Amino acid sequence: MKPNVAAAKAELSHLDMDESPATIRNKSRDFFWYSPVLKAEMDHLEADFVVNPKSEDEIIEVLKACYKHDVPVTMRGGGTGNYGQAMPLAGGCVMHVTGMNKIKEIGLGYVVAEPGIIIKELDTELKEKSGQELRMVPSTYSQASLGGFIAGGSGGVGSANWGALRDLGNINRLRVVTMEEEPRVLDFTGEELHRVSHAYGTNGIITEIEMPLAPAYDWVDLFVRFDTFRAATEFAGALAAEPGILIKLASVYAAPIAHKYFQRVKAHVSESDHLCGVMVAPHSMDGFKTLLDRFDEGEVIYRSDDVKWDRHPGPVFEYGWNHTTLRALKFEKDLTYLQVRYGDDIEKIMEAYETFSNDLYMHLEVMREGAGLSFAGLPIVKPLDKAGLDKLVAAHEKMGCLIFNPHRYTLEEGGRQAADQRQLDFKREADPKGLLNPGKMITWDEPDFDYSDMYSYAGILPKPEAAE
Amino acid sequence: MKPNVAAAKAELSHLDMDESPATIRNKSRDFFWYSPVLKAEMDHLEADFVVNPKSEDEIIEVLKACYKHDVPVTMRGGGTGNYGQAMPLAGGCVMHVTGMNKIKEIGLGYVVAEPGIIIKELDTELKEKSGQELRMVPSTYSQASLGGFIAGGSGGVGSANWGALRDLGNINRLRVVTMEEEPRVLDFTGEELHRVSHAYGTNGIITEIEMPLAPAYDWVDLFVRFDTFRAATEFAGALAAEPGILIKLASVYAAPIAHKYFQRVKAHVSESDHLCGVMVAPHSMDGFKTLLDRFDEGEVIYRSDDVKWDRHPGPVFEYGWNHTTLRALKFEKDLTYLQVRYGDDIEKIMEAYETFSNDLYMHLEVMREGAGLSFAGLPIVKPLDKAGLDKLVAAHEKMGCLIFNPHRYTLEEGGRQAADQRQLDFKREADPKGLLNPGKMITWDEPDFDYSDMYSYAGILPKPEAAE
Repeated sequence: MKPNVAAAKAELSHLDMDESPATIRNKSRDFFWYSPVLKAEMDHLEADFVVNPKSEDEIIEVLKACYKHDVPVTMRGGGTGNYGQAMPLAGGCVMHVTGMNKIKEIGLGYVVAEPGIIIKELDTELKEKSGQELRMVPSTYSQASLGGFIAGGSGGVGSANWGALRDLGNINRLRVVTMEEEPRVLDFTGEELHRVSHAYGTNGIITEIEMPLAPAYDWVDLFVRFDTFRAATEFAGALAAEPGILIKLASVYAAPIAHKYFQRVKAHVSESDHLCGVMVAPHSMDGFKTLLDRFDEGEVIYRSDDVKWDRHPGPVFEYGWNHTTLRALKFEKDLTYLQVRYGDDIEKIMEAYETFSNDLYMHLEVMREGAGLSFAGLPIVKPLDKAGLDKLVAAHEKMGCLIFNPHRYTLEEGGRQAADQRQLDFKREADPKGLLNPGKMITWDEPDFDYSDMYSYAGILPKPEAAE
Repeated sequence: MKPNVAAAKAELSHLDMDESPATIRNKSRDFFWYSPVLKAEMDHLEADFVVNPKSEDEIIEVLKACYKHDVPVTMRGGGTGNYGQAMPLAGGCVMHVTGMNKIKEIGLGYVVAEPGIIIKELDTELKEKSGQELRMVPSTYSQASLGGFIAGGSGGVGSANWGALRDLGNINRLRVVTMEEEPRVLDFTGEELHRVSHAYGTNGIITEIEMPLAPAYDWVDLFVRFDTFRAATEFAGALAAEPGILIKLASVYAAPIAHKYFQRVKAHVSESDHLCGVMVAPHSMDGFKTLLDRFDEGEVIYRSDDVKWDRHPGPVFEYGWNHTTLRALKFEKDLTYLQVRYGDDIEKIMEAYETFSNDLYMHLEVMREGAGLSFAGLPIVKPLDKAGLDKLVAAHEKMGCLIFNPHRYTLEEGGRQAADQRQLDFKREADPKGLLNPGKMITWDEPDFDYSDMYSYAGILPKPEAAE
């Protein structure tokens, strides 16, 4: 099965395609460079061509033509994924959907939109027209697309209240096109949503999305300073545990993150200050202050509706989730990060904080999980090579921490190292030739893979030096 | 200190007062008759006079005159409390505030209103004018006043999502008038709220209330049938534990409650059917159905937006919370109830279900509590006298269940059998003569009371037979 790129391209020549090599290279990349491991493996990747469909019909055309000529198709939205989700391991076609950015319907509690809409634009229009907003957004919301968030994200700003993106009720409906000789258009709800949510576009192309909404309050952004990491962590947990205090974000940044990497915060903290970044509904500020007063320490150093700084720090959520690492990377380009789940066990967090103090700076995000809470860790990791990172991951796992390894480009390795049977089954049905984002689903290529080392997709484009 | 009722009455004669003995008797009563014990103790109680102030100024006049003439003042809203909260143990003045029913301000996320407003009227206007509603309401919301809910309630419909009324953030501000020679008007927020919330009006009179609001969705009412009580309980818990499924109510009615006491449900269930009553946001129905499908049993027999019955059952929340007992009492006037907290321990609930199967029918309400959930029990108890009820309470406590005894008229016995120091301290300051709702705060009258038996207020009006 050799792709006939030229034939597919010719068949699609009436569509909007990018011709400039620089644009093609640029549109073949995402935020994979968060990881030195992925940077080494994926930096050379490039699509053969980039197409920008404007409608579901055009998507179907692309899928049909590429199916016919055996050309791989990798979906891309805003390109803010940092697991290399949107990068074409085997080249072929990269399909950009940011041109499919219409809002189709706004109702009380829900919105129907196209996948390519930039989340910030969606939220701005939702607030303006209906006083509503998405329940949760990635910290990259000014660049990320809605479809990309669903296909490649797992939660974010808002998860402190609403849980993870794949929790029941956080996505209402997905319309999906298959990659068959005659592509089918399917509407998924309920359990079926899990076939394609967080599947990196490996088994279908999302063309329409219905999401639940929450009221858009004028969230109060705050930074709260603590002397100890434990106190900051305990406060963030206690805040998220109050059912009557409505919050959207509860981040914890261990010292010296704020002083070292948060440029506009630097003047207001010392090297040893630990910080919480929180978003609180205005009508929950009394409850917030009351809770904070119950803690011995905890000093509000910034409050968007009151305490002003000479230089506006911007939205507090742009310090949380993946933006914490992003800000650090601006200062030290060799830094990296991990993604850890500690559950609700603060003692385990403290153990990790002490054990790994030479390797990383702790960064936590509180999420609702089931009936309780879970702390997600996105620590900033000091420069380490692959072997060092693998060792650090193993040490976390030994401690009982679940790692979603962000130094891997496959679904399984970035997840729970096991087949997602629903995704795999649907790929069999929807992508019989295995052309959708190839190499990202191990269990499709190599069901017996043993996870003893990083998976290396056999069909990956050769690196330039190897190709010479 | 002998009250001079005539003098106080004369001083207040320019205010709206009730003269008819039937009205005075009627306005001196609440839903105390839920309890056979309270019925025996309190049935004869009657105010000397009833005054209906229309403003804070008039309230101050009443408090000043009654202070001057040593006349007890008991506050009353809609009279739906079932701990005898609004009943004048020592006679004197009952102050009805349902005339103080203005909405003063509606903002995004909050409302400012007078205490006498009927909650249903408040919610109706809130929804109409702003698309919002109170976070939680009592099942008696069509009769209950907002001030009465705060002074005498603890949670209700909405607690499945927002927790208890006294949780941080669920009341924003209370304006309170003291009963001193010169009454003071105080604004309470934060920790100060606990001085007067759920204090039965024993230490100040609430004259203005600021409450947080939630979006008013067109909640879908459902009844879901189960073969076993365990399955119904597990489903209700699982539903409330899903952060992405927005609900307002998750009630569990063990068999044969629905068949025996829910007139319009009877035709749709058998004697052995256990029922859940739930309210789900329309945009969470997909999540709800998906969750229900994960349970082996669980059949939707009523859905307000779809499955219709010949005879409309009315709002599902009017089957939950205190309404469950209320409906049973319409059939068997000697029944009564308990208020039990099981925490999140379903095995303890099952143990109680089996142990007490001869004494009661289980009825549960799921609430959010801290980072988790708690099951509140309001079981329907078969006719028992005081001794029998005391034995049943003791058996629950032995099992490790917390009881809020609804067969007592004092704050302490209906709560955790201990002084609420904040309430007591504030009473010292705000009601130096002890005239506000006397006899309801044991620690004011008798700090060394040992709770070995029911408290009996020394100043209670003598029963007619005793008076003869």
